[in-house]
Amino acid sequence: MTGTAADIDVSRDGAGTVVPLNELMLDIGRRARKAGRILALASDAERATALRNAARAIRDDADGLLAANAEDVAEARAAGRIEAFIDRLQLTPARVEAIASAVEAVADLPDPVGRLLATFNRPNGLVIERVAVPLGVIGVIFESRPNVAADAGSLCVKAGNAAVLRAGSESFRSAARLVAALRTGLEQAGLPADAVQIVPVRDRDAVGLLLGGLEGTIDVIVPRGGKGLVGRVQAEARVPVFAHLDGVCHVYVHADADLEMARTVLLNAKLRRTGICGAAETLLVDRAVAGTHLKPLVTALLDAGCEVRGDAATQAVDERVKAATDEDWRTEYEDAIISAKVVDDIAAAIDHIETYGSHHTDSIITANGDAAVRFQREVDSAIVAHNASTQFADGGEFGFGAEIGIATGRMHARGPVGVEQLTSFKYRIHGNGQTRP
Amino acid sequence: MTGTAADIDVSRDGAGTVVPLNELMLDIGRRARKAGRILALASDAERATALRNAARAIRDDADGLLAANAEDVAEARAAGRIEAFIDRLQLTPARVEAIASAVEAVADLPDPVGRLLATFNRPNGLVIERVAVPLGVIGVIFESRPNVAADAGSLCVKAGNAAVLRAGSESFRSAARLVAALRTGLEQAGLPADAVQIVPVRDRDAVGLLLGGLEGTIDVIVPRGGKGLVGRVQAEARVPVFAHLDGVCHVYVHADADLEMARTVLLNAKLRRTGICGAAETLLVDRAVAGTHLKPLVTALLDAGCEVRGDAATQAVDERVKAATDEDWRTEYEDAIISAKVVDDIAAAIDHIETYGSHHTDSIITANGDAAVRFQREVDSAIVAHNASTQFADGGEFGFGAEIGIATGRMHARGPVGVEQLTSFKYRIHGNGQTRP
Repeated sequence: MTGTAADIDVSRDGAGTVVPLNELMLDIGRRARKAGRILALASDAERATALRNAARAIRDDADGLLAANAEDVAEARAAGRIEAFIDRLQLTPARVEAIASAVEAVADLPDPVGRLLATFNRPNGLVIERVAVPLGVIGVIFESRPNVAADAGSLCVKAGNAAVLRAGSESFRSAARLVAALRTGLEQAGLPADAVQIVPVRDRDAVGLLLGGLEGTIDVIVPRGGKGLVGRVQAEARVPVFAHLDGVCHVYVHADADLEMARTVLLNAKLRRTGICGAAETLLVDRAVAGTHLKPLVTALLDAGCEVRGDAATQAVDERVKAATDEDWRTEYEDAIISAKVVDDIAAAIDHIETYGSHHTDSIITANGDAAVRFQREVDSAIVAHNASTQFADGGEFGFGAEIGIATGRMHARGPVGVEQLTSFKYRIHGNGQTRP
Repeated sequence: MTGTAADIDVSRDGAGTVVPLNELMLDIGRRARKAGRILALASDAERATALRNAARAIRDDADGLLAANAEDVAEARAAGRIEAFIDRLQLTPARVEAIASAVEAVADLPDPVGRLLATFNRPNGLVIERVAVPLGVIGVIFESRPNVAADAGSLCVKAGNAAVLRAGSESFRSAARLVAALRTGLEQAGLPADAVQIVPVRDRDAVGLLLGGLEGTIDVIVPRGGKGLVGRVQAEARVPVFAHLDGVCHVYVHADADLEMARTVLLNAKLRRTGICGAAETLLVDRAVAGTHLKPLVTALLDAGCEVRGDAATQAVDERVKAATDEDWRTEYEDAIISAKVVDDIAAAIDHIETYGSHHTDSIITANGDAAVRFQREVDSAIVAHNASTQFADGGEFGFGAEIGIATGRMHARGPVGVEQLTSFKYRIHGNGQTRP
């Protein structure tokens, strides 16, 4: 068994034997399970050392990594990929340093394993503890951003989990090189390199096999990429998935909203970065303040270069507003476009969000505490904000450190998925000979 | 839309229109989702009132329930079911009262919804709270015990979830009657009856449809029954499952075990009740104390009427010990039978448990604290006990109140699944106009 992803690749694609894909994938799963068990019992110091080693290995291999990335980029250009795609794919010395630093930052996070989550002191003298343990083996499927290999791999290692990474064929060489550095870091720390593996072939059927769970060796799948990927994973996976398909986030300007605050928060929520999942896509303005607030808010958006697609009331305040269709209320633009609507009251706002939203992140702007409590209670989203930008939907902003993604499901993880959400738990019963009556 | 399971049944099986099964099931799922949303926003007082009403409705309908159960029992007898099966199915006035009391006990549990799970005070002044919310819609598939309908249904309601129950055809009439009482309780409390529904047809294809998730309306499936049912559910479900397939639980008598404690705990772990999942199935005795401890422990088991299947060392201490095969180490007897083996040391004990166990509940008997820490750390089971019987694997014994089952999976719930494990969470961000830089 060899130490790097490149080595695995050779064993299949080189002059030697070619392993059938399902056997290759199953072997990856089994090795991940075995390595994960060892990693789960390693100390935090060992896991952190492995990650610091990996960061050093990334820096040491910067030239090789950039060369591999250049091949990926050349292939992507030859395939006619658009510039935004190339930008996600392309590494620079500064980006390589950022990747290495991010791995070190994960190393420095508090140990999520072994946290005492609850204690139950029983009348019979038993002390029962619920304690955090690693989740197991995490499959990560991503597309063009090679940094996901390092980010996701290091988060998994920090939480004591094995990772099986599947890179998009576009970022294949770059991601494999980063995984090789993670494996070097693990080996140097005396931990099994197989705790981080990358699927060493581009065959798209590998994704289907991974989604099938590889005979129970994969515990959870995290897709990182566009809606096409996430949708396929959610539809086909036979194991749990941590993901969000859409981020149709709302800003609701309530009857008791301060206009200045509403304008500031709205502009940030929509325009700080338009491509992130926490960006606002719909503005809802309460009819009670539509007369005073709607025009200034819409004008501010338009003047900042944002296209506004509105209902009749919104169109009436500025001729630059286009007409919204029903489809607009469901659309995550990921661009400088917003849909806008006047709603009758807070109930109508909540109803709109439940009808058209994606249960990701929604915000109410109001000086009315009761309205905020109601909104935060009744809006069934992973994150519900009061007087704050929706763009705070981010593990770093929550203080979780890096995140492997944001989940809108309700099982196990929800919202930003940081290292704590990459753990499970077990119970320890401490007795002195107790028997059950 | 009518109020009781019996009504739904009539709409299909009566003289009127017959709805195709997939439409019938999908309608159940959609009604559950809708009712669940209302239940999720109800107060604990409302949910508790619904359950107390339901308990009263069960008592009020005792005669009808016993008559329905008598039909189920007669059918089971006619089908040649064994007496143990009939016993699980049969209700008596005392059992009806126990069911009603259990529903009241669930009503009295602390509210699992709205618990503040964590607070993050951010440098920018944001206060971020993680707060418990209901999980959603829970599918419960069970077999012959009609009380599961009331137990599982009431736990779901207490945690603000909707329940879709699928009773085995043997307990069909009894379970439907109990569900009708739960629905009456909900309606009397002003809550939607559809928060608890029972699949109103015996068609076995209904199980497959339920396991498919009914177009995303089912969030999690809980199977309650024999290994055949649990195995099918785990293999076929397209949604998460809270379950355990096997309870191959171990008692490991360590080198520093007190013989008296070992004997007491072992007899309780094996023989208090042999049919529950937390009953011990394998005894491991450390070689260091085999000379002093093995014979007394084995003799105690044999004398108590327990069959012992052992390795050569165990067979040597008493001629009544039968030879164990490799299959014995993997077997959950659910009977007064135990497998027994001498292991070289704690590492060998842990290795045996990881190789043959089912990650349910395992116990070490030792006066050595370091050994206990190691065992509890390295044994990868939902519950790992020190100097205590494995039969404590029970939500009631943990202080959780009733449980919907015991899970050996690692996602979301693990160990006893009580009302707290039937919740998810959301984040509330409290700001005063913060924007993200």
